[in-house]
Order: sequence, then structure tokens, then C-alpha cells
Amino acid sequence: MTSRTGPGLTLMTTVTCDLTVSVDGFVAGPRQSLDEPLGEGGERLHRWIFDPQGEDQAVIDAWQQAPGAYVMGRNMFAGPGPGPWDLAWRGWWGEDPPYHHPVVVLSHHPRADLVMDGGTTFMFETGGIVAALERASALAGAGTVAIAGGASTANQYLAAGLVDELHLHIAPLVLGGGARLFEGVGPRDLVPTQVIGSRDVTHVRYRLT
Amino acid sequence: MTSRTGPGLTLMTTVTCDLTVSVDGFVAGPRQSLDEPLGEGGERLHRWIFDPQGEDQAVIDAWQQAPGAYVMGRNMFAGPGPGPWDLAWRGWWGEDPPYHHPVVVLSHHPRADLVMDGGTTFMFETGGIVAALERASALAGAGTVAIAGGASTANQYLAAGLVDELHLHIAPLVLGGGARLFEGVGPRDLVPTQVIGSRDVTHVRYRLT
Repeated sequence: MTSRTGPGLTLMTTVTCDLTVSVDGFVAGPRQSLDEPLGEGGERLHRWIFDPQGEDQAVIDAWQQAPGAYVMGRNMFAGPGPGPWDLAWRGWWGEDPPYHHPVVVLSHHPRADLVMDGGTTFMFETGGIVAALERASALAGAGTVAIAGGASTANQYLAAGLVDELHLHIAPLVLGGGARLFEGVGPRDLVPTQVIGSRDVTHVRYRLT
Repeated sequence: MTSRTGPGLTLMTTVTCDLTVSVDGFVAGPRQSLDEPLGEGGERLHRWIFDPQGEDQAVIDAWQQAPGAYVMGRNMFAGPGPGPWDLAWRGWWGEDPPYHHPVVVLSHHPRADLVMDGGTTFMFETGGIVAALERASALAGAGTVAIAGGASTANQYLAAGLVDELHLHIAPLVLGGGARLFEGVGPRDLVPTQVIGSRDVTHVRYRLT
């Protein structure tokens, strides 16, 4: 567990970010839409999750069991593209989203908490990425805070130096375009702490310095 | 060993490409020059070669021992930047380059073979990437043909579907800019065949389909 202080920021929670990327560094293919939420070719990124091989299931379990709260971007809640975005819209995860914990959604619009089935509550934070992280940290209990994406949200947290552990799941495909991880993040060093390979994916854990 | 035929192309040689890349996909940092041939921050990409850890040395040995001939781009021979490029220029690798085999250099200018110490001979091919590959293949004997780089040359061969095995050595740093692997390559599938992690690098071998 990391204690980190910054301008107005004291966290006692480890901040993680699990992302599946193509070998050319995209977390989604080009032209994301509600029909193709992961963009052209992007569905195949997550093949390893739906048909785990070798140690993939253990990696999935670790990914899902560690967080006590999540932070996600607006599009990750509402769905890609212009999409519906009004107070009646309950997100595109269905009534039982796969989070089962509080999820702080970065938003420009204040909104009451949205309690879903299965333990997921979406909370809307208009104060920016630091405020969202502090709020999630206060909600996480003994768990980690997981930055759930998408790429733009992950890049903002990485650029601000607010991620302790980046867990990349590198899928064996070239997407050729889309939402790029590390865009605008700038030079920085990482420390690989774990490498696991399976048939469909290479898992690399990095600690950020 | 792969036999591949295409328009005017029959190869009985396996074509490999070993590249060290940053986690954000660059084989060199921004602003390459003769003073900083790997661009800003790019020297650190190759730390694992100069101070091998764990299984790194075995990976280096496999990388160096398999090829019977190389193909490289013009800048990889002459040095980055505008640099010297006349018939007196013997490249920037010194008199005993680390190849020890024939090296076919993609060039727009015909030039006589350049015999160096230690078994390296630079040969200049003006007929394009397929002609260069055929020539290297004929020279490789029982060895592989290795595409030695840089990024633009590797991307041309990848885009043309002429690489059998891509060996990525993923260094744990974000460069934030530079020469990008996979630029313009377009959608394609790969098959991971080997994953090895060490302190400073993650080695992933891919077979291209």
C-alpha cells in the first residue's frame, strides 16, 4: 500500500489500472460506437477474458478481487459515441454491472448516486480526477482503487503520476488505430514486477516510479 | 522454416525481426541525431543488452546466432539524421560491425559492396524491400534473415506480410514520442509463442499469421 501526498492529496490506497491493449498500444479499435463499443476489431482484445487459457483465470480473479472502488470516465459509464446522456440513462452495463463496488464516474454534470444490483453504485464526480480519486479512496476500505478506463481517463491519471501499478494485458493483434494508451503521458520509468504468458495474451505488471 | 511465395517471391528462409520497444511502442525516442542516435531517452531502451539479467543473455545469444544475413534501412547503416552519405562513408558501426554476416542495405544509390572486419559485408540494394529480402535469403545459408531495423524498415516488411517471427523486447519506459513500431502496418493477428520476463525487459516472441 502506498501513501502519496501531493498538492491537496493524501492517499493511503494503492491505485491500480488494468488495461487490455493491442501490441500497437490501443485499448479499443477505430470508430467506437454503441454497435461496436470497442471499435473495429476491438472485440478480439478481450478474447482472453471470455475464453481464459493457462493462468488467465488467476489473473482475472486478481483483477476483480483487489479493488474496493473504481474510477471511470464518462464514456465508460454512458457508452461510446454521442449516446444517451440524461438523468434517465442508467449506463450501458445493464442492471447488474460487473463492478460490485462503488464506481466514481468523472462527469461534467452533477447527478444523484445510481444504485444498481449486485453492489455497484455509480457516483458522479464533477471535481476532476484528483477529487474522484480521493472519493474512491475513501470508499475503497481495505481494497485498491482501480482506474477502469477508458484510455483517456487512464492517460490522465498516468500523466498526473497518480497510478501505482499498471497491469497490461497485451493481446496478440495489431489494431492499426483507435484509442491509444500512453497518449500525452510523457517520459517515465516503470518497473516490471510480474510477467505471465498464455495462448492469447501476455500479462505484464508494472510498478510506476 | 517457412516457404513463402508471392508475386515474384519464393523464400525458403525464416524472416525474423528483433526489436526493442518502449511500452508506448517506440524503437527510438524523439529527435534522433548522430549525438543521440536513439533519440531523447532512447539509450535506456537497450540497458538490458549492456547489463543482461536473468535469461536476457540467452535471449541475446538466440538473437545473434540465428541470422545468416540481415536487411537494414539506409539510416541504420549511415546513422540517423542528415549525416554523411557518400562513397567514402563506411557507416557508423565502426570497422567491426556487430553483424558478422552479409547485411543488405536498402538504398536509393548503387554502390559497391563494403567489406568490413569480422565477417560483415554491407551490400547496397536499390530494388526495394522484396529484392533486398530475396538477396539476403540467398546469402543466409541455413540461417534466418533478420530485419535489423529501423522502425520504418520493419514497418514496411510487416505491412507487406513478409515477417515470419517478430521478437519484441519491451523495455519498461514510456518515451512519449519517436519512431513508432507498427505505424501504417494495419490490422493483423499474431500468435505469442514465448514470453520471458527479466528485471529490465519483457521478451515476447510472436509468429505472424
